Amino acid sequence: MRINRPVLLTAIGLVMAVATVLTSGAIARKTASPESEIRAVLDAQAAAWNAGKLEDFMKGYWRSPELTFFSGGRKLSGWDATLERYRKTYQAEGREMGRLAFSDLDITPLGRDGAVVRGRWELTMSDGKKPGGLYTLVFRRFGDGWKIIHDHTSSNQ
Amino acid sequence: MRINRPVLLTAIGLVMAVATVLTSGAIARKTASPESEIRAVLDAQAAAWNAGKLEDFMKGYWRSPELTFFSGGRKLSGWDATLERYRKTYQAEGREMGRLAFSDLDITPLGRDGAVVRGRWELTMSDGKKPGGLYTLVFRRFGDGWKIIHDHTSSNQ
Repeated sequence: MRINRPVLLTAIGLVMAVATVLTSGAIARKTASPESEIRAVLDAQAAAWNAGKLEDFMKGYWRSPELTFFSGGRKLSGWDATLERYRKTYQAEGREMGRLAFSDLDITPLGRDGAVVRGRWELTMSDGKKPGGLYTLVFRRFGDGWKIIHDHTSSNQ
Repeated sequence: MRINRPVLLTAIGLVMAVATVLTSGAIARKTASPESEIRAVLDAQAAAWNAGKLEDFMKGYWRSPELTFFSGGRKLSGWDATLERYRKTYQAEGREMGRLAFSDLDITPLGRDGAVVRGRWELTMSDGKKPGGLYTLVFRRFGDGWKIIHDHTSSNQ
């Protein structure tokens, strides 16, 4: 059998290039899965909330006019409007932030750079009341990490 | 300049293969974009609703126990439970389905086989009342087309 050397070298080079790409991808996925990265964002949000740091809590959201926040039939557009709503609802005179907990989490990746999170939220207030409800979060992976691009929340009250 | 014929032929073959893949991808996207396919699912749902055909309306949903439906803080799991809720809410004694319209649609693809739809729903009832609200739909592309795998709806009432 005659082997054509230039063709053989080209083929070996191609196989090595493909193998390198596949291997580096597998390592990247193993070290930090979308699920674990997104869970870290949510953990950081709950910690910030419970420290009373609303601006830090807001770091989980995409800082863009295109961020959307749906709540009780009302649509808000933009990071600024979302922060404003949180301030009015939880930091205005006579309001309190309470202690936030997320539960019943389901993180479903959609493609490499998207994910949907379904879960429950519950606040424990100083008077023992526990307002809560459900949320759907849409996450997108940006250069600086996973961010919420859309939040739909509904209250069980 | 000496040209090595086998290497040249291999290179030409590679360029042609890559061009074919890119071109066929572009054509596939042009003939049926995720946006237009998803819009067709929603149009079919509204038409089925307005014809009083709830089972046809339900064809837009993933027929699975893993389908989730969030509404007013309440979580339902599964296609059957979702249909049951629609029946109780809109087909029980003294209820009516009304005329359904979707508006303010935003279809955001996430990866090749996922998408998130944000929009408003409004029913026009026989007495002129117009209950409505917002929804977030998560779509996934299956072998038999795009289906809703999660629905979070909230009412402005």
